[in-house]
Amino acid sequence: MKKLINAVDDVVTEALQGMQAAHPDLIEIHLDPNYVVRRGAPVEGQVAVVSGGGSGHEPMHNGYVGLGMLSGACPGAVFTSPTPDQIYECTRRVNGGRGVVHVVKNYTGDVMNFELAAEMARADGIEVEAVVINDDVAVQDSLYTAGRRGVGATVLAEKLAGARAEAGGSLGEVAAVVRKVNDNARSMGMALTPCTVPAAGKPTFELGDDEMEIGIGIHGEPGRERMELETADRIVDRLMGPILEDLPFRSGDRVLAFVNGMGGTPLIELYIVTRRVARVLEERGLRLERSLVGSYITSLEMAGCSITLLRLGDELVRLWDAPVHTPALRWGV
Amino acid sequence: MKKLINAVDDVVTEALQGMQAAHPDLIEIHLDPNYVVRRGAPVEGQVAVVSGGGSGHEPMHNGYVGLGMLSGACPGAVFTSPTPDQIYECTRRVNGGRGVVHVVKNYTGDVMNFELAAEMARADGIEVEAVVINDDVAVQDSLYTAGRRGVGATVLAEKLAGARAEAGGSLGEVAAVVRKVNDNARSMGMALTPCTVPAAGKPTFELGDDEMEIGIGIHGEPGRERMELETADRIVDRLMGPILEDLPFRSGDRVLAFVNGMGGTPLIELYIVTRRVARVLEERGLRLERSLVGSYITSLEMAGCSITLLRLGDELVRLWDAPVHTPALRWGV
Repeated sequence: MKKLINAVDDVVTEALQGMQAAHPDLIEIHLDPNYVVRRGAPVEGQVAVVSGGGSGHEPMHNGYVGLGMLSGACPGAVFTSPTPDQIYECTRRVNGGRGVVHVVKNYTGDVMNFELAAEMARADGIEVEAVVINDDVAVQDSLYTAGRRGVGATVLAEKLAGARAEAGGSLGEVAAVVRKVNDNARSMGMALTPCTVPAAGKPTFELGDDEMEIGIGIHGEPGRERMELETADRIVDRLMGPILEDLPFRSGDRVLAFVNGMGGTPLIELYIVTRRVARVLEERGLRLERSLVGSYITSLEMAGCSITLLRLGDELVRLWDAPVHTPALRWGV
Repeated sequence: MKKLINAVDDVVTEALQGMQAAHPDLIEIHLDPNYVVRRGAPVEGQVAVVSGGGSGHEPMHNGYVGLGMLSGACPGAVFTSPTPDQIYECTRRVNGGRGVVHVVKNYTGDVMNFELAAEMARADGIEVEAVVINDDVAVQDSLYTAGRRGVGATVLAEKLAGARAEAGGSLGEVAAVVRKVNDNARSMGMALTPCTVPAAGKPTFELGDDEMEIGIGIHGEPGRERMELETADRIVDRLMGPILEDLPFRSGDRVLAFVNGMGGTPLIELYIVTRRVARVLEERGLRLERSLVGSYITSLEMAGCSITLLRLGDELVRLWDAPVHTPALRWGV
């Protein structure tokens, strides 16, 4: 196992300390239990947005804490759900008096622990509304999930809901943005290589030198099909087909295309993927209105990519363009 | 070779087409010869800044074209210098009447081809001033270089010189910023794994399962020492020592710390590296004034990192904070 780490047990804590050192103007970290909040939290009179999940998907979620996006994030151990007390304490810390929206990826442990934390917070008189993200069209159920997994739409939902909160939206309005994103987004991913969880010390799965896995999950969970490696264009077509048919996206729709690297994929390859995504959209009569290309929801050093399409209306375009200032996403400020 | 590509010969061109599809508001690409310019170039009455080099280091340089950074970039084939005609045509295209600064990494082919292009442009009456970047303290000469290699300081120089040009700086003033960055920046890198150039189809070098290379170049050129894998903290100390001693940086200096991933390194590991960088700076009495953490000058899918320290004064802080809007770096707009 070749990694830039010290001790296996210190990976998450030390990365948080590094984030604090790099971004003292944006975030405050809390250790034991671990969580990250926007500097100066709570923002009084503003709805807060909290997310969290296993570590190993960086910059998600810690990298999205700041103005116009998340109020707080709860990182679990690598590929392990955060505990209810982490989420509860983070929720209390960021509550500005108008309630807290929980953005929860659909993994059994995450959903359960966010539910428990929400109950604890409600017992303290904090209003909490949770929305579960389940945008992955690859599989119906999976290793860690009843129903579809939550993947790329999570990043988009955090940006867009955070913008709504920043603009003074109510708890219901901010939660509605998360639901709207989930309803209008579909994703699918693939892997060229596995990744290695530090505590395990060996790859999460094995892939032959000429094999790839289509429909992979962000923890290396099996997807739809293991098959011989193909060209980038053919791979994009395999991902775009199920995504486009599922919603379904229709000719004339305006979309945000999010081409995501799994952590070990060079940007030059992601742009080759983006080229084909844009051509498929054009062939289908969809309008590429906004794009996001880079490694934003990852699986440690896994090589591969995922594609998320979000159908946009004027409200989502406006929220997307609104200022954001976090360690990983920044514009307009 | 597992890559998201179509044909080996189309990698650079197709990635450029993907960039164009993703960022039509920011850049315009030109194919054959290949170059990328800021949308709407030239900006009349503004000094232009052009860089370029082999592809495979994305987002450098194409990802840095836009407001407040590069006016144009010339991507060669993977790990291969751009040709004089690419650089010449790009230079002509972006010249807004006040001259063009060439930011050149110190590799023999780059230096020679930028010199030829500058002569061609001067013959057309365009003023060109070239500055060579050579910030890598690892080795004196190397496989592709007489003298030190140009690495991480290039990204910083492009941002800072672009800001000076945007603010109306003269040709001499913009070139002076590049020289100032080069004079005040030092870098060193290391690799955990090699990378594979698509046209070669096999790794650029071999490393054992428990080995790393200290002082690696961005094309996989040998560094100072191949040795047994160590902890992240120990690795950081091995890079920081030579960097700090070379300038030398002194107690009280204000610095920008740039912790860079080589392409295949997850962000969680880069933050573990950043943690130690911040501690070493603190121990030495240096002030961490700004930071940049991520994969900004890469070697395809190589795993590893590099550290660049830049000594900052008020002018460079102001230029760093100035608005930038490119595919890969954006703030303030």
